[in-house]
Amino acid sequence: EEVSRLLALKAKLGGDAPVNQKFTLKTPKGTRDYAPQQMTLRQGVLDKIVQVFKRHGGEAIDTPVFELKEVLTGKYGEDSKLIYDLKDQGGEILSMRYDLTVPLARYLAMNKISSIKRYHIAKVYRRDNPAMTRGRYREFYQCDFDIAGTYDPMIADAECVKIVAEILDTLDLGEYVIKLNHRQLLDGMFEACGVPADNFRAICSAVDKLDKSPWEDVRKEMVDEKGLDGATADKIGEYVRLSGGTELVEKLLADPKLKAVPNAVKGLEGMQLLLKYCSLLGLEKAISFDLSLARGLDYYTGVIYECVLKTEPPLSLPATPIKTSAQNGGDQQDQQGGGGIVGSVAGGGRYDNLVGMFDPRGKAVPCVGVSIGVERIFSVLEAKFAASKVKLRTNDVEVYVASAHKGLHEQRLRVLNQLWQAGVKAEHSYKLNPKLLAQLQHCEENQIPLAIILGDAELSQGVVKLREVVTRQEASVKLDDLAEEIIKRRPKD
Amino acid sequence: EEVSRLLALKAKLGGDAPVNQKFTLKTPKGTRDYAPQQMTLRQGVLDKIVQVFKRHGGEAIDTPVFELKEVLTGKYGEDSKLIYDLKDQGGEILSMRYDLTVPLARYLAMNKISSIKRYHIAKVYRRDNPAMTRGRYREFYQCDFDIAGTYDPMIADAECVKIVAEILDTLDLGEYVIKLNHRQLLDGMFEACGVPADNFRAICSAVDKLDKSPWEDVRKEMVDEKGLDGATADKIGEYVRLSGGTELVEKLLADPKLKAVPNAVKGLEGMQLLLKYCSLLGLEKAISFDLSLARGLDYYTGVIYECVLKTEPPLSLPATPIKTSAQNGGDQQDQQGGGGIVGSVAGGGRYDNLVGMFDPRGKAVPCVGVSIGVERIFSVLEAKFAASKVKLRTNDVEVYVASAHKGLHEQRLRVLNQLWQAGVKAEHSYKLNPKLLAQLQHCEENQIPLAIILGDAELSQGVVKLREVVTRQEASVKLDDLAEEIIKRRPKD
Repeated sequence: EEVSRLLALKAKLGGDAPVNQKFTLKTPKGTRDYAPQQMTLRQGVLDKIVQVFKRHGGEAIDTPVFELKEVLTGKYGEDSKLIYDLKDQGGEILSMRYDLTVPLARYLAMNKISSIKRYHIAKVYRRDNPAMTRGRYREFYQCDFDIAGTYDPMIADAECVKIVAEILDTLDLGEYVIKLNHRQLLDGMFEACGVPADNFRAICSAVDKLDKSPWEDVRKEMVDEKGLDGATADKIGEYVRLSGGTELVEKLLADPKLKAVPNAVKGLEGMQLLLKYCSLLGLEKAISFDLSLARGLDYYTGVIYECVLKTEPPLSLPATPIKTSAQNGGDQQDQQGGGGIVGSVAGGGRYDNLVGMFDPRGKAVPCVGVSIGVERIFSVLEAKFAASKVKLRTNDVEVYVASAHKGLHEQRLRVLNQLWQAGVKAEHSYKLNPKLLAQLQHCEENQIPLAIILGDAELSQGVVKLREVVTRQEASVKLDDLAEEIIKRRPKD
Repeated sequence: EEVSRLLALKAKLGGDAPVNQKFTLKTPKGTRDYAPQQMTLRQGVLDKIVQVFKRHGGEAIDTPVFELKEVLTGKYGEDSKLIYDLKDQGGEILSMRYDLTVPLARYLAMNKISSIKRYHIAKVYRRDNPAMTRGRYREFYQCDFDIAGTYDPMIADAECVKIVAEILDTLDLGEYVIKLNHRQLLDGMFEACGVPADNFRAICSAVDKLDKSPWEDVRKEMVDEKGLDGATADKIGEYVRLSGGTELVEKLLADPKLKAVPNAVKGLEGMQLLLKYCSLLGLEKAISFDLSLARGLDYYTGVIYECVLKTEPPLSLPATPIKTSAQNGGDQQDQQGGGGIVGSVAGGGRYDNLVGMFDPRGKAVPCVGVSIGVERIFSVLEAKFAASKVKLRTNDVEVYVASAHKGLHEQRLRVLNQLWQAGVKAEHSYKLNPKLLAQLQHCEENQIPLAIILGDAELSQGVVKLREVVTRQEASVKLDDLAEEIIKRRPKD
């Protein structure tokens, strides 16, 4: 029966009339291929981000794309329903990673690492309702930088803000603001307004929607869905409208209601220190202390950040915001949901208790981190490029080796061998006798700067023509000097 | 009930006594984390490989990590049982990619692309029996270069051999040999020996085991399991012992049995052309025409390659070869199974009918490609590094900003800000008042070349100490010149 199976396979694979599939050729819902043009753009963005991470001493790690299901269980609240599970095929029960934070916590606890400054760039998976024109996917890259370790307050936290600012500056995405807030202050403020302690997280998740919904809607959710009385909601409403700098912190520290609540005072003192460090790092103009910032996920325990673009990029996006998972109350590290049309392009915060959940003795490793919303950034840049009509080069070929007439393919291979050995990026036609015009057109279409044109007349004298594709200027170059001459013409940078 | 759910979550996440997990902390079977040391090594290898791919004009693409299950169905023969399926959670039925070749074929057919020279470096997934000491995993990187398009014979095929040789040379893994063979020749040889046509693939898969098993075992499989008569098997045995260069091709072209079989003649003529082109590309010493090379998967239609290391790397590996999936008859692109202890480090071949399987009208796009066995290569290099006791740097920090005494953390932040703005890679302690000795030890442990030591005495004069960590030489540098001075001391390359 093996033979008949193999025969059937052979018929499928090797037969002259291939069996054609009967299903629609597509990638899974919410996913996409990256074509060379997109890869070039993406690689450029990631390179710049990694440069910033390394400037701050970051080390790279990688973890498997799936984890034991138990590792992810109980970490994401109601968003757990968005986790992809693998089919039970015998053996362990596995799920695809939902973010890079829980795998980091698992990694630290498993290897008993008590301090690290790591970055991790990798795909994560969420069975969310994709809105791909907004840069929202079911498979998407996250790009995280986290500092783990027991340190003095706010020093590492301020550096994370600095990293976000450096990345936004280097990517040249226009003006942005990094909103800052503190979970302890939020809790203290809720307490001061009279919210029962067991309702803090639910009210916090309502506040989180202020970047997309007007106060009236949020107030309604607090009162109608979450059982808050109207007067309490209105008190919260006064606070969450506030944003500013150190002067706001001082004003709030003098506020009689907040002064009476230790959590609020601690949160405000933390903000004061953070703003001071941020100012020493030259960030004064980039940041805003914003009491409406709440972040979705529950695991933050201290400072929280979110970076939004101020100017709308030239995107053809739907006019009405699409309901996002963040609106359902459960997104943390992810910039998939956010304010404005493009939404936030970075976010994060301090989570001091997550690693302890994995340690058998509950040993905590305090952590603070940021996640760069690279898919959003790719979408913005892709739209920018489409609008600019600039054609991105997708290969790095320096020189194309062309034949002027028939019968030169062996000569081409000899010349190419010489160039490749010298480290020159070179290609040619895989046809024996391509037309010269077709070869030169290939150079123009692919923005290859130089072409070598082989011809018997020149070869008999040991030379070839070297042509600048754009100017069409030609020079005669000795075969032996070819690689050297091409290297000499490389653009300096 | 939302409130109580949130409360329960809060207890888990924010509580002082975290709930500890009751399962063993581990990564899924057959997977591993990459620590910073491994990432550094891996990134170095991949950078070098990408450099070679780009030298040959390769463009990058990426595809989703899962595909519609139907895309993978019927492509891998008996290895299909190793495919990871996702749980049916409503919506589409998905499977994890098994290799990068089928996704490429799907991509080409879906986008109606008739020619591309692409590379793709990404993780693939197989529910195989892992042998991690041999560099065999369930999640592992593949690193593929393929040339798609309708071209003249063997020109693209020879370039793939060149690429393998360039990569092996640049990675400095010792001596290697690239074995070459041709599926048409194998089929012709089977026909000449009297194998029935419907038994070609089964016999081919038996021949594939010659790199791990002695001829006697392979003959036994042919006769006992695959029903070949002994005399026919012995004729095959004569051929598959042969290896050499052009002289062997000529000898076989003169062989009366083979001469009578058109497939054999076509295969030999193909080999003749390939060997000639390889010689023009300076590959004569790197290659061997080897009639025992068969490759597992069915979809190859022309030339096949496999590269093996000649010298054993210093690995602590099991003495007896482990049964691999390739021994079960079904591995193509994958270097997970192969000869010797480390096995093959690259392999590939021509597959002209795979894209056509996805095209509604069966339109074929001929393809040839190679896959670099990077996991094997990582294992070899990791073992090499472990043996050499060289400590790899896992960060790029150029300078550490230290405090000589208490109360200088704000000064440190100012200096760091100045350095980061100038693009200098710099870090410091996240503690307010770290001990000087601890700071200098951190530099030594992390091989940070320079340290700035801040002290009130120097700062009052607008200078700081700049110290070479290894030599302990110190110089006084003006605060304003600091970034410039550090950039001046960068190693040139």
